[in-house]
Amino acid sequence: MNDTIYYNRRQQFFNLLDDGVAVLSAAEYMTRSNDTEYPFRQESNFYYLSGITEDQCIMVFEKRDGVTKSYLFVKEVSEQESLWVGERMGIEGASLAYTFDEVLNIDTFEEKMPELLTNLPKLYYDIFGTSTLCDTLKLTCKALMHKRGVLKSPRTFSDVYKLIQRLRLIKTDDEINLIKKALSITKEAHHRAMKQAEAGKNEFQISAEIAYVFASHGAGHNAYENIVAGGNRANTLHYIDNDKVLEDATLVLIDAGCEYDMYASDITRTFPISGKFSEAQRELYEMILEVQLQIIEMIKPGISKKVIQEASERVLTEGMMRLGILKGERDALIEEKVHKKYYPHGIGHWMGIDVHDPSPYVDDEGEQIIFEAGMVLTIEPGIYIDEQDDEVPQRYRGMGIRIEDNILVTASGCENLSKGIAKSVAEIEAQCASSL
Amino acid sequence: MNDTIYYNRRQQFFNLLDDGVAVLSAAEYMTRSNDTEYPFRQESNFYYLSGITEDQCIMVFEKRDGVTKSYLFVKEVSEQESLWVGERMGIEGASLAYTFDEVLNIDTFEEKMPELLTNLPKLYYDIFGTSTLCDTLKLTCKALMHKRGVLKSPRTFSDVYKLIQRLRLIKTDDEINLIKKALSITKEAHHRAMKQAEAGKNEFQISAEIAYVFASHGAGHNAYENIVAGGNRANTLHYIDNDKVLEDATLVLIDAGCEYDMYASDITRTFPISGKFSEAQRELYEMILEVQLQIIEMIKPGISKKVIQEASERVLTEGMMRLGILKGERDALIEEKVHKKYYPHGIGHWMGIDVHDPSPYVDDEGEQIIFEAGMVLTIEPGIYIDEQDDEVPQRYRGMGIRIEDNILVTASGCENLSKGIAKSVAEIEAQCASSL
Amino acid sequence: MNDTIYYNRRQQFFNLLDDGVAVLSAAEYMTRSNDTEYPFRQESNFYYLSGITEDQCIMVFEKRDGVTKSYLFVKEVSEQESLWVGERMGIEGASLAYTFDEVLNIDTFEEKMPELLTNLPKLYYDIFGTSTLCDTLKLTCKALMHKRGVLKSPRTFSDVYKLIQRLRLIKTDDEINLIKKALSITKEAHHRAMKQAEAGKNEFQISAEIAYVFASHGAGHNAYENIVAGGNRANTLHYIDNDKVLEDATLVLIDAGCEYDMYASDITRTFPISGKFSEAQRELYEMILEVQLQIIEMIKPGISKKVIQEASERVLTEGMMRLGILKGERDALIEEKVHKKYYPHGIGHWMGIDVHDPSPYVDDEGEQIIFEAGMVLTIEPGIYIDEQDDEVPQRYRGMGIRIEDNILVTASGCENLSKGIAKSVAEIEAQCASSL
Amino acid sequence: MNDTIYYNRRQQFFNLLDDGVAVLSAAEYMTRSNDTEYPFRQESNFYYLSGITEDQCIMVFEKRDGVTKSYLFVKEVSEQESLWVGERMGIEGASLAYTFDEVLNIDTFEEKMPELLTNLPKLYYDIFGTSTLCDTLKLTCKALMHKRGVLKSPRTFSDVYKLIQRLRLIKTDDEINLIKKALSITKEAHHRAMKQAEAGKNEFQISAEIAYVFASHGAGHNAYENIVAGGNRANTLHYIDNDKVLEDATLVLIDAGCEYDMYASDITRTFPISGKFSEAQRELYEMILEVQLQIIEMIKPGISKKVIQEASERVLTEGMMRLGILKGERDALIEEKVHKKYYPHGIGHWMGIDVHDPSPYVDDEGEQIIFEAGMVLTIEPGIYIDEQDDEVPQRYRGMGIRIEDNILVTASGCENLSKGIAKSVAEIEAQCASSL
Repeated sequence: MNDTIYYNRRQQFFNLLDDGVAVLSAAEYMTRSNDTEYPFRQESNFYYLSGITEDQCIMVFEKRDGVTKSYLFVKEVSEQESLWVGERMGIEGASLAYTFDEVLNIDTFEEKMPELLTNLPKLYYDIFGTSTLCDTLKLTCKALMHKRGVLKSPRTFSDVYKLIQRLRLIKTDDEINLIKKALSITKEAHHRAMKQAEAGKNEFQISAEIAYVFASHGAGHNAYENIVAGGNRANTLHYIDNDKVLEDATLVLIDAGCEYDMYASDITRTFPISGKFSEAQRELYEMILEVQLQIIEMIKPGISKKVIQEASERVLTEGMMRLGILKGERDALIEEKVHKKYYPHGIGHWMGIDVHDPSPYVDDEGEQIIFEAGMVLTIEPGIYIDEQDDEVPQRYRGMGIRIEDNILVTASGCENLSKGIAKSVAEIEAQCASSL
Repeated sequence: MNDTIYYNRRQQFFNLLDDGVAVLSAAEYMTRSNDTEYPFRQESNFYYLSGITEDQCIMVFEKRDGVTKSYLFVKEVSEQESLWVGERMGIEGASLAYTFDEVLNIDTFEEKMPELLTNLPKLYYDIFGTSTLCDTLKLTCKALMHKRGVLKSPRTFSDVYKLIQRLRLIKTDDEINLIKKALSITKEAHHRAMKQAEAGKNEFQISAEIAYVFASHGAGHNAYENIVAGGNRANTLHYIDNDKVLEDATLVLIDAGCEYDMYASDITRTFPISGKFSEAQRELYEMILEVQLQIIEMIKPGISKKVIQEASERVLTEGMMRLGILKGERDALIEEKVHKKYYPHGIGHWMGIDVHDPSPYVDDEGEQIIFEAGMVLTIEPGIYIDEQDDEVPQRYRGMGIRIEDNILVTASGCENLSKGIAKSVAEIEAQCASSL
Repeated sequence: MNDTIYYNRRQQFFNLLDDGVAVLSAAEYMTRSNDTEYPFRQESNFYYLSGITEDQCIMVFEKRDGVTKSYLFVKEVSEQESLWVGERMGIEGASLAYTFDEVLNIDTFEEKMPELLTNLPKLYYDIFGTSTLCDTLKLTCKALMHKRGVLKSPRTFSDVYKLIQRLRLIKTDDEINLIKKALSITKEAHHRAMKQAEAGKNEFQISAEIAYVFASHGAGHNAYENIVAGGNRANTLHYIDNDKVLEDATLVLIDAGCEYDMYASDITRTFPISGKFSEAQRELYEMILEVQLQIIEMIKPGISKKVIQEASERVLTEGMMRLGILKGERDALIEEKVHKKYYPHGIGHWMGIDVHDPSPYVDDEGEQIIFEAGMVLTIEPGIYIDEQDDEVPQRYRGMGIRIEDNILVTASGCENLSKGIAKSVAEIEAQCASSL
Repeated sequence: MNDTIYYNRRQQFFNLLDDGVAVLSAAEYMTRSNDTEYPFRQESNFYYLSGITEDQCIMVFEKRDGVTKSYLFVKEVSEQESLWVGERMGIEGASLAYTFDEVLNIDTFEEKMPELLTNLPKLYYDIFGTSTLCDTLKLTCKALMHKRGVLKSPRTFSDVYKLIQRLRLIKTDDEINLIKKALSITKEAHHRAMKQAEAGKNEFQISAEIAYVFASHGAGHNAYENIVAGGNRANTLHYIDNDKVLEDATLVLIDAGCEYDMYASDITRTFPISGKFSEAQRELYEMILEVQLQIIEMIKPGISKKVIQEASERVLTEGMMRLGILKGERDALIEEKVHKKYYPHGIGHWMGIDVHDPSPYVDDEGEQIIFEAGMVLTIEPGIYIDEQDDEVPQRYRGMGIRIEDNILVTASGCENLSKGIAKSVAEIEAQCASSL
């Protein structure tokens, strides 16, 4: 994507601002141990409005009597740094690549801010942050409040991310294409996992196959930590140890997605280590699959997440009743949250630059966000039956199943962006049977 | 390793303490983006004294009139957490697994500390840390100082890591075995890279091959971010973009090591994309190789890092003179730091739990640490000649070469722990020529 | 005043709030040295809305869909504390004395806040504060944002004092009576100073006389640090050393007011140590007095501070021209700020609970606040001529003169609340001549 | 005192330091309300080593291989500041007045510190402080630890005040003279209070008389908040409300001292409002007086505070037994802390620059500090009987009595520095009867 896309987003963002100043900072490198760092990941909202992947940048949006002005502060190039860590864009590079009203040296940030904040009532920034930047902004506002000759200064601080997260709800075609690209890599990864999994291998070996597919396509970072959970371990929802041996006659649940050019995929598949579903496995699997298909069917503009959440609870409870896992009356079971024991999580979540896009589910009036074309969410019903749970027919114990796809709301309904990934019993068994 | 090893280390640590209290905290999960986290990495010193890989643990060492008492605070197991992220050891599990005088619930930490700190003059903790734990400790000491009836309280704070880092200098056999294990995986990874590299592939593809070998052996995390630097990019010392296409007739520098069971390897190899060194490449490569071999030869108890650093500068300068890269008188060149332009980094560093083990290079009196059996360090001379550098014979421009091995000081000299990894021109060309 | 007055203010405050929560904390004791503290002074806005003079209290205002609920958190009585520092109101006492919807133990504050903040979009608190309370509130909001099941939480923080400071602009009769009471004490203090001042006494002796009058009337704290500036020292605007000997033939400038029942007076008088104005002193004094009288004459509803500020600069510049201190054309002198050299400060400021009431001078649209009945401000023109200033006729050098009264805007104009304090040359000389 | 005295103290301080850097900062102005501040009070230890009473100064002591170098950072003079708040010493003034190896601009402090801290192992500073200076120092040390080429940096932080507080234990003649001067003013104040107190007057009026004496002698600040406690209010130990009316037939307890040239006095007297002790008042008063005289008698080099504390408990318990307040066996009463109900505080405390000098009572080995010539402490036994306490003979209820003098340990015993202040029944009644 070139800067036009980001420029337009910045204009949209300006439209949402009251008179005031908004400050967004690039992410910082995080220490892993001693002097080694985790791989750098740009802050999502900063990226959304700029496309910039460098650290040590700050964007400032000034709106004064409705007139807007944008600033980009960047680190200047130094010879010493070039030798050690390579090139930076610097002021010159940034001026060429990005359309800001002013590009400045980040070392002048503290000096410049009092001027920008004078006589404006509101500051949008990372109000929950703990960086020195946050302290600096607060102290600058405080000093302004007591400075001779300054009549007004920001006395309201607003979370700068809130408005951007609302914008991020609707994906453009460029964004959808990136998610599709991430999914095409993810498809290959899950299919490879199906081919490679076998009893006696360790979960980390399967995890390694997945990461390998991601990385060799340039999606160097998982969108989240892989879950490769053999057997009963699938009943730990965020099992990320991935260090046990896979056993024959069990299922393995794999929840793995990659991050391609900053956009996430988020896919779960569950399949038999042996390559063939047992009868009980198939019964439980197909029950969940049916729930998933029904819910996907419902998705279209005009409904809300609450609607499909409640529907999923009804259909899944019915399924469990059918299989003898739950007994009683459907609505009473739901009322008393009995079903939550086996389906304790939600039906899905927004996704995009973040695997869990932090866009809202209710609006400022507390009303549910209504689906519109361009929204992307996961649909991921699941069932989790502990091996020790003697309230459930023995045949189902020790199984944890989740099926997750990534769904785009379209004008007329929805599109399953991950539809090529083996999901039916037949497709899965075929993948398991094929070789690399 | 079982707790006996760690218990003994804790006793050694106690011996180094003055009367006072030492507090060490486990690492915390670091946010990558929104609600996703980077893979957890235990704090190195905490691990060294405990072997514990869980978060939310605190160790406390109390020494009062020379009498010692050790405490371990852990998170108690909760059902909700078990469902979501799996098992914790809890107080019971920790009591069984680890030999502490008392195992306590971490929720009681704040309440317990004033008692432990009363009438002791010194607190060892992470004095540079910014966690709430650090604040709590400081406030507890401050409150004690003003509390009626308390005669003394800690008024000296010491970096708890300093003494441990000194201990970490000498590796035990168990530690050396883990480094060897890490190196055997690393060997496979570098050899795979040599086989797989070819013109037209992207650096990230080679990086993916390396990470795949690491991960499929359960060394799930690189010890540091891989460097896969094709051509002139090798002249950026910490090049980690790894996103350019490899070109024929160039070298590629790969600096990559894994972390196996918390211990690092750190290996650099440089080889021709074509599989065959050109004459100029070979000249430069063999010059560096000779430096490396000479320096390794020198390593034995009784010398210091300073000795081999200075030797490496002399030999490398001579090599550059021989090849016509530098002109003049050796010692004058070194005196004026002319050689630093092409060899700007150090000859090596301690390694162990951290790839750059933060153990000291000088002692408390400012004297050089003298090599002893059990110390492990890298030896990694290098030369970096920019493609635009017209002061150097054209044939060498655009090459960056580093050769790095991991060396154990032994009673009689040293052992190259990474000696199986292809390094001579012949070995490298053989690896490049072989297939997977 | 009883709680009805404060209750009504709290209702007014609620009217100004958006849906959200407002938190106000009592002041804290400030350390003077080691374990001694400065006299406790309640935070002004907290006092304005509650009348409470105790520390360790927090008021919370909750507005949810327009429905309001008020909370008061107080420290509970403890026997140990009663022995050492005396009684507290405690929950029971506070419930009897103050009309809040709920009175709670301050120890439950942290536990209670998440409930109050859930699903409300805005938090009003001391956004520039550095107390642990401020940290707690921020962390509570941050945790809520990520808590399962919470749909909304405060993501806008507003300075809680801003709205209250606006309310404080208009004084009620009760407040005006307290200012009058403070002024009656201040009158006695200034008159005593005129009687007691004489050459050879130290400035601190005069300062002691003033403080004595304040304290013996129960106005135990000056509203600000006294200025008793003999001779040329009056040209240091905030001279508070007060430690030099008064000299014959000089003027002394005294700027001193007391704080009575939390309300300030702020009075400046300048008079001759000898008790008799010299001719030059009288000329300069009467010029300033005339400025002051003219400005006071102007004050009435409908004008703004800017109007009288500019008028004061014109009249004072004319006065200086008349006395030969400035030469040139009036408006040009003002344009070039030449007059600022001798009249560098403003004509006055709001006053009330604070000597400089922090109420605004412009409104949210940036327009000047227009005077209304009930506003109280100082009028304090001054002239300061350094003894070394050879651009000014010698007769005036070394004099600093300021005359300050406290003025109430009334429906029909204004009332000089401090009119009984000797101000004309005759009145002052009479006071100087009389005895205690 | 001139700088020689302070220079010598700095040399003594240097002798106590290990290799490292010690940083002491001047106090900061504390906000009282909005933009008004409490009177500035220099930090005691900073003053002790410098005699400087300005804010915005920092002293740095560098000790490197035993070689010492002292630095003083001061605020440079600015014209704008001179106009508003008067003169500062500035670099030039400070260089003339004080003997430091270097006097520097405080604006260069951050820039200078890394150089001073490099390769030194220890930093002495205000480890419990929360100023930005403290943060700066910590961050500087942290950065140094990771800086290429720096071999060592401070990894032990020690409370800079601890060593100085130990030095402050022994007063020089100059210090004793200042305490004597403070006491001569305090004597006049207490005598004036005795003369002026009468039934019907408010406590604050008596407090005003005392403050007036202090201030008119240039001791502008009480050493602590006055206690003027009529009747039963004397049983609240730190009663500082001082706002009730004095009643006939009751005692008034006055605990008031001034701060003269930074040195404190600390005197308590208790006397009858009527001017004449009733029989019961005299009995209780003389019992306490006898205790006080006995304890003072004991003071001499070689004993410790613990010795006189325990003695005071024995003698006072005997006194209470004699008067029928306690019944039983002396040692058993003390063992069970029954006497603590009526004598809940200590026998005295160190004094000097602080009214409660924070010098230690035990040494680093936990042993009692042994009295030596030059130490100054208060001796202040007391008895407090609540008016509602029906376990005590009715005649004594509602009385709180404390008698406090300031005692200097001398080579041969001790000197009561406050001996001229009326204390016997006869002396007190004489003072009460005399007029101003």
